[in-house]
This record gives sequence, structure tokens and C-alpha cells, in this order.
Amino acid sequence: MTPIKTQIEIPPGMIDFGIGHPSPMLLPLELLKEAARNRLDQNHTGYLAYGAEQGEEHFRRALAQFLSRSYHLAVNHDHLFITAGASLGLDLISTLFTKPGDTILVEEPTYFLALRIFSDHGLNIVGVPMDAEGLMVDTLEKQLTRYEPVLLYTIPTFHNPSSATLSEDRRQHLVQLSNKFNFLIVADEVYHCLSYTEKPPRPMASYAESNTVLSLGSFSKILAPGLRLGWIQAAPVLLERFIKCGLLDSGGGLNPFTSGLVRSALELGLQDQHLKHLKAAYSKRMRALTKALTQHLPSFTEFSEPSGGYFVWLKLPDHIDTQKLLLSAQSRKVSYQPGLKFSHRQGLNNYLRLSFSYYEASQLEKGVQALSAVLKKEKARL
Amino acid sequence: MTPIKTQIEIPPGMIDFGIGHPSPMLLPLELLKEAARNRLDQNHTGYLAYGAEQGEEHFRRALAQFLSRSYHLAVNHDHLFITAGASLGLDLISTLFTKPGDTILVEEPTYFLALRIFSDHGLNIVGVPMDAEGLMVDTLEKQLTRYEPVLLYTIPTFHNPSSATLSEDRRQHLVQLSNKFNFLIVADEVYHCLSYTEKPPRPMASYAESNTVLSLGSFSKILAPGLRLGWIQAAPVLLERFIKCGLLDSGGGLNPFTSGLVRSALELGLQDQHLKHLKAAYSKRMRALTKALTQHLPSFTEFSEPSGGYFVWLKLPDHIDTQKLLLSAQSRKVSYQPGLKFSHRQGLNNYLRLSFSYYEASQLEKGVQALSAVLKKEKARL
Repeated sequence: MTPIKTQIEIPPGMIDFGIGHPSPMLLPLELLKEAARNRLDQNHTGYLAYGAEQGEEHFRRALAQFLSRSYHLAVNHDHLFITAGASLGLDLISTLFTKPGDTILVEEPTYFLALRIFSDHGLNIVGVPMDAEGLMVDTLEKQLTRYEPVLLYTIPTFHNPSSATLSEDRRQHLVQLSNKFNFLIVADEVYHCLSYTEKPPRPMASYAESNTVLSLGSFSKILAPGLRLGWIQAAPVLLERFIKCGLLDSGGGLNPFTSGLVRSALELGLQDQHLKHLKAAYSKRMRALTKALTQHLPSFTEFSEPSGGYFVWLKLPDHIDTQKLLLSAQSRKVSYQPGLKFSHRQGLNNYLRLSFSYYEASQLEKGVQALSAVLKKEKARL
Repeated sequence: MTPIKTQIEIPPGMIDFGIGHPSPMLLPLELLKEAARNRLDQNHTGYLAYGAEQGEEHFRRALAQFLSRSYHLAVNHDHLFITAGASLGLDLISTLFTKPGDTILVEEPTYFLALRIFSDHGLNIVGVPMDAEGLMVDTLEKQLTRYEPVLLYTIPTFHNPSSATLSEDRRQHLVQLSNKFNFLIVADEVYHCLSYTEKPPRPMASYAESNTVLSLGSFSKILAPGLRLGWIQAAPVLLERFIKCGLLDSGGGLNPFTSGLVRSALELGLQDQHLKHLKAAYSKRMRALTKALTQHLPSFTEFSEPSGGYFVWLKLPDHIDTQKLLLSAQSRKVSYQPGLKFSHRQGLNNYLRLSFSYYEASQLEKGVQALSAVLKKEKARL
């Protein structure tokens, strides 16, 4: 029996820093066994039927309690709408809140695959620059009168790819702007719970009372991506648009069966334990990667140490094109995501993204050594 | 602990013929326990990771074999794309193959919740009439030059709501027209496997080589709606559009975890057994309903006996408005779906849909008696 193929196939021997996935050994098989047993042994079949549109209430309550513990803030289960993952959340938002030709704002850099979802919906994408404190909200303010965007897509905490976290002041300013200029803030907060060295500011989800924030959460980064289970936290007036849309009216709640199993994982405390385990594992990997980068990387490279999430964002000298460099890197058995991919305007050519989620410390170090050799050779060549 | 709420809440004592869901006792809890145990006890974690975009290959192979047995035709696993249910399939088709303002054709009557999905995508909806042999393809031909539709949405077998099945001749003619007039046939074939008295013509899925057919299938009607698992069967050239879209690129395959469990159900033969069980149960319910209708309904009502699916479509005299009648029916503890809902143009006022999937024979008969009393009273009043 050949093994199950997943979304990625890595050539043997390759260290692919491009993969923003949890490693196979961090996938919680035993946890899901226990959760499935717990749920299926109770003689209820409700989660096998078409589910409540907003998501099953017991599940939303258990999730709200978990989020309240993780966010250190009270989360109301009535502010949660259950999705089949953050990507589907983005797709639904695009369908329900935009029309082709509308302008939306994204960060430069931003999550490259979100760009593809927006582009399938015919949206016009404009970038807003970032610095070490995240999205440059002052610059955004100047852009708002010009573009009149329908929404802003932002990754406020442990950004993908830059690892930057939006400061508290900027969060407040951003929310003010969204009210003044009448646009939605679509906050992709899937990394928020993965903090290793510093507690982030409160999530954008906590600004829901402004009626302008849609916060995307997901079990992909804290449990298992294959579950395709996530949520949108927002004011009820915004959630209503999802709950009453045609897709939900037809198919019912987006993932009732998996919600039933994950409800057990939440209620039995297994999700809390697993998150603690993940944070310890990822924190160790992050330290191993940044240590190796500091040790081995040539001095012409720059990066900021992340305090959470999955990623390190490397800046190289202007004349090094990381897209062009990819082939020589791969011939040395190391790979990454070139900066170009995270740009809505084909820029960021001298950046690259490294992920520390997929490999253990020793492999991360081996990969950094290979990458350093490639970079030094390229610098010498130019 | 309050029970899990599902998409529907039926008032106590009400027989609601409006519900097109399997009844709770037909939801396969034991089957899923066995399938989950089988899958989770194997120490593989592939289905917990981001999944292959098209759907996991072993699962597609097992599904192709099941479909080959059910359709009595060879189905190739490369012609299958795994979805999170037929409704999501329709939503994705709308995103990827249409733009707001495009015209699409639907049957009159048609599945009312599909209309809502199309309307969320800003599509212009035009109806094509049906008769006892299904969609009137000759009439369609005349409409095609006028409307230049992007697609036609059809339920070819055991139609929802009319229970009609498109004849083999018309299927062939329809495919010819789709090539000649360059439109897609979106065939909702979720009831195809639920045949009770007559084998239907081969599914529209089997015309995939025309490159114009997208056939929607689902486990909702043959296993459990809460799984949110289905498929699209089509030529690879059409499937490519889904597999390479932004949503799939970002989130990976649409339901890998549930696919893993249902793969076991397919491989262990549990799905075949369950389908046999369902066909026996639904066939019995269908006979009970049609017998009760023949016995109790006033002579001014008309219906055709279905040979599969979930529904009976009742025609009443022109002047009886089934939407208006609904309140008096409900006061007598019986409910249904008024014809109006299945019309894209607010017509079909003198029709109503009865479903026999949710109740057992004795309840169906009780419901028919109540409905007959309501109809007789209404006729006398007018």
C-alpha cells in the first residue's frame, strides 16, 4: 500500500524551508483517536445530520471557552461562525462582501495564497507597506481616500511571511479608520495562539464591537490541517450574512461531523494540552533556526527574530533575486519561498521566507548550512 | 446536556413533509464508528495534513470502484474531484466558471437552495420547463440562442422536487446542444444511486468525454449529510480549474480527514451495505406515502409515482395557493414545501413538494390524512 499523498511532495534529501505545514510527527493521531472514541461512543447522531448554519452550539461554546483561555479575554460563542478552514472563510467573504472589480487592500508582503483566492473573485488588489511593527497604518490612511477599498486583508500577529506583529496602538488606529472610511478588516489570526517568547497584543477579534472586523481562526495550525475546520469571530450583524447565505442554507453548517469530534478534543482538554506541546516544539525549532541563521548566514543578510508563528523573513542585498536563486538552492538540496510570491506587484525579489514548522532542529541547521553556502556563492558571483 | 441542534427544528407533533433529510435513525453511527476505528488504528497521519488538491488518491480509487458498481459503468478515479458536499461544489462552480450578470438556465421547477447559491453570485437565472420526461430539451434549444447561458443547472435523475427522470434520448440531445452552444451542464446527481423501482438511464457523469458535463455527487444522501463530503465527476480538463484554484492551492484538498474515514467505509464494503439498507427503507416509505396519497387525497390532486429519490410533487387545481395554505396546514400539524420555492419566477403556486425520507410509514400516513383534510376544506372554501 503506497502512503497517502498530501498537498506537498518533497524530493528525498531536500530540506524545504518553503513548507508552512506542521511536521507529520506533530499531527495528533492519538488525540483524534481519543476524541473520536469519546464522541462516537455517545449515542447521539446530531452531528451526522445537516448541521445548524452557524455551527453546532455545544461546539461553539467549547471553542469560545478555549479561545477565552488562549486570548485571556472573554469570547462569546454567539460571535463565532464555524467554517471549513480559513481559506474557505476567505472565499466566502469574497463571495458575500465583494464583487469583481472591487478594490481590496493587502499587506506588502502578504500570504501569497490569499492573493490567489481574491484573484479568483476578480478583485483589484492594492498593497500597503509594512515595517517592524506590522502594517503601516499612517500610510494606509493616505491610501484610503484614493482607493475606497471594500476590505483590508491583514495578518496582524506573527505575520506570514514577515513574522511582524501589529502594535496595539496601530490596531486601535486601524479600527478607527475602518469605521471612518467604511471598510472591513479581514484579520487572518491563525497564528495568534502560537506565541513563544512574547504575548501578542489582544487579537483583532476583540475589536468586534466596531462591526468592521472579521477575524479568521483555524484548527489547521493548532490541531490538524486535514480537519478543514476553522471559525470566523465577528459581530452578529456581520455573521448573519454568512449564516443566511445560499451555501449555508443549502448544505447547513460547514463541517458538523468534524466539529463533533473536535468538540470532544476541546471538552476533554486535549486541545489545550496539544497547543502547549506545539508551542514547546515550535519554540525549540524557532530557536534552533535563528541560532543557525545567526551562526552561519553571511553578514549581508538581515532578519528579525520572530516571537511566534511559523516564519523567518530574510532580507538579502537588493541585487540578489531569490526567485532566480531557487534552482541553485534546490540543486544543493535546500528550498524556500522566494519573496516575489508574497508581493501583489511582483516585487520583494531580494527577500525569502523560511518556515520552521516542518523540520526538527538538526534538519533546520543542516538546511541553513546549505542555504548559507548558496548565498555566499551567489554574492561572490555577482 | 441539551441535544445537538441540527439545521431543522420541527415543532412537537408536526409531520413536516418539507424536510428533505434522512431520518435520524437512518444516520449510520455504527458504520462510522467502525470506519473511524479502522482508519485511526492504522498509524498513518497523511489525512491529518493538508491534503492533495484533487482529493486523496486511495479514497478516489475506492470511490471510483463504488461508483462503478452503482452506475454499472467504469468510473475513472482521475475523473473525480473531492468536494465538501454538493452545495460547496455549486458555490465553487459559480466562482470559477461564472461572473455576476452572466445568465444561467435552471429547470422550472428546480432545487430552491441552488437558486440562493446562484443568486449570491449575482447570476441572472432563466427557467426551462419540464415535463414527465424531465427537462424539455426541445424548448431549451429554442432558448439557447436568445440567452447564451454560461451553464445549465439540472437534476436529471429523481428530480428535486418533481421526481422526474430525464430520458436517455434527451440526455444525448442535451449533451449535443452543450457542445453546439458552448455551455456547461451542471448535473446534480445526488439522488442517482437511490433508485427503488426502475433503473435510471446512465448518469450525466458518463457523458464526461464531451468536456461539457460537471456531475455533482454527494455522501449526504447515501451516508450522512454532516460529513460534508461529495465529489465532482468531469473530464480532467474541467477538473483542472478546481484543482488549481486559489482556495485549493491555499487549503489543500477540501475534506481530507473525513475522506480518510469514508475511505474505510468504502473499502470495508460498509457503504454498499448501507446503500442497500437505505434503498430498502426509502422504497418502503415511498410506497407507504404513495399508497396513502392514492387512498386519502381528494380527486382534484395529481402526482406521478416516483421511481427513486426523496420526493413526491403534488399538483393542485390552479386556484389553490400552496404558500397561502401553509399556515392552515401547520395549524393541523402537517407541513410541506410550497411550489413557489422551486420557481425562479415566483410561479408554481398550485404545487407542493412532499418528502418521504424523514418519516416512517405510519407517520407518513398520518401526515397524508391531515394534509387531505386541509386540501378538502380549502377546495370547499374556494
